[in-house]
Amino acid sequence: MSILVLGTVALDTVKTPFGKRASMLGGSAVHFSMSARLFTKVNLVAIVGKDFPARHIDFLRKKGVLLTSLIKDSGSTFKWEGEYKGDLNCALTLKTELGVLSVFKPCVADSQKDIKHVFLANVDPDIQRHLLKSMRSPHFVGLDSMNFWINTKRKSLIRLLKEVNIYVANDQEARSLSGESNLIKAAKALKSMGPDMVLIKKGEHGVFLYSDDFIFSLPAYPTDNVIDPTGAGDTFAGGFMGYLAGRGKVTPANIRKALAYGTAAASFNVEGFGVERTSVLKLKDLDRRIKTLHKLTVF
Amino acid sequence: MSILVLGTVALDTVKTPFGKRASMLGGSAVHFSMSARLFTKVNLVAIVGKDFPARHIDFLRKKGVLLTSLIKDSGSTFKWEGEYKGDLNCALTLKTELGVLSVFKPCVADSQKDIKHVFLANVDPDIQRHLLKSMRSPHFVGLDSMNFWINTKRKSLIRLLKEVNIYVANDQEARSLSGESNLIKAAKALKSMGPDMVLIKKGEHGVFLYSDDFIFSLPAYPTDNVIDPTGAGDTFAGGFMGYLAGRGKVTPANIRKALAYGTAAASFNVEGFGVERTSVLKLKDLDRRIKTLHKLTVF
Repeated sequence: MSILVLGTVALDTVKTPFGKRASMLGGSAVHFSMSARLFTKVNLVAIVGKDFPARHIDFLRKKGVLLTSLIKDSGSTFKWEGEYKGDLNCALTLKTELGVLSVFKPCVADSQKDIKHVFLANVDPDIQRHLLKSMRSPHFVGLDSMNFWINTKRKSLIRLLKEVNIYVANDQEARSLSGESNLIKAAKALKSMGPDMVLIKKGEHGVFLYSDDFIFSLPAYPTDNVIDPTGAGDTFAGGFMGYLAGRGKVTPANIRKALAYGTAAASFNVEGFGVERTSVLKLKDLDRRIKTLHKLTVF
Repeated sequence: MSILVLGTVALDTVKTPFGKRASMLGGSAVHFSMSARLFTKVNLVAIVGKDFPARHIDFLRKKGVLLTSLIKDSGSTFKWEGEYKGDLNCALTLKTELGVLSVFKPCVADSQKDIKHVFLANVDPDIQRHLLKSMRSPHFVGLDSMNFWINTKRKSLIRLLKEVNIYVANDQEARSLSGESNLIKAAKALKSMGPDMVLIKKGEHGVFLYSDDFIFSLPAYPTDNVIDPTGAGDTFAGGFMGYLAGRGKVTPANIRKALAYGTAAASFNVEGFGVERTSVLKLKDLDRRIKTLHKLTVF
């Protein structure tokens, strides 16, 4: 089964202790696509401006990403500039230029409206809901957000939580939205707000999935080669949601495997700037790391 | 095989959002003993003052802890007072009274000098080394420390690292002593300072063991019933080191199982004040949680 992802396509300028890249291809929908494409056909819904380089469009097409619902607007592309210092777990945002993102109204091609697996990557929750409403029979919907929306559009986000199957949050977001400092309590509280499952991403500490029926926890793949963590969460979500879409059925066993694929994909993402590493990923690369991850955790 | 633990026996006053306890039995050697006793005979090396209640001595004896090398001094017992606010991951120290700890020179009974498994819980690294030198043929030595010694007795601690098999640190300590912010890099750097293995405790995020031959990672047991986390690290170490001493052989398979036992033991520790919960623990309680932990992590 194919998957549809709503998110951003951006031009990122990133500085880390290992170097700097200006105006790289980035954005949540792009990072998501780089891992999801290994399992399923990815339908990308986003907006770019007139300054968006044609080579990036070619690149995405070559990677098999369907761009039918990528809007090209006359404004300028969404741009993010950030820096990571000593502790690469934390990004310092230097500049954000919303550009066309401020007028974004996603429009899904009719041929894509029957897609069953949907991921609403981090954009305004009202836009996420608008997109979701246009889908005819979504079967498994994932939702990501960020502190900005938790603080400024809390009500919209909480309303949307009732309409999705899985809410994906990092630990800070989970604590902030739930008001609980204990992550298990936070996950339970978020679950009670509507979604079937809550997935908490803890960066270098791995992930934790909570549902009423089962809990699953996985450490991060142990890499000491962190070059640029931008997009790691979206790459994780792409591996996770992509695997499930590829399998079709969302069973506990598939969810466990999907978490492992997401974890492996994210570990590659951080090992290069932007999509440098994930754009050349093969399924067998993920399989190799999953084997290691298995050895790492079995007792 | 039996185990010898050097550490503190303290009177703890702890306040958390769930209540307050004054002058409870605490200290690293006590918390360690509560979990280690389930697997092996625990020989405790520590010091208490003349104000130390006889009922605590009786209690430890009843729990099977050998007190041959517990010194009773004329000063006052080591006291710690702390508070945990919203985020129970972080203790606020309100008061520390070293008392007899400032004159502590551990003295191991001759009958205990042939013990093979030794744990040097957090005290002055010079005292830890003094104890270690008095052992005749230690086979597996674990070392814990804390930021205070990393900052004030760095040289002593680094010298001691060369003489132990496993260095146990929390994530902050590992970063601080190694100067590396990435935990994998930190573990590698600490390993290169001498020990065969480095074990990093990440609290609610679980544990991570690094050696040249293998890496092992385990999430924390998912409890949302955190009452008082004081001593969780020591309880973890007691389960871990105790299991290995009980098995005798330190093999990778035993190490993995030991980490699971340590994790399960720590999860009980946080569910009550002081040793309220761990003092009544049975092996079957740990086994039950290990089964859950297994389900949680298998994929």
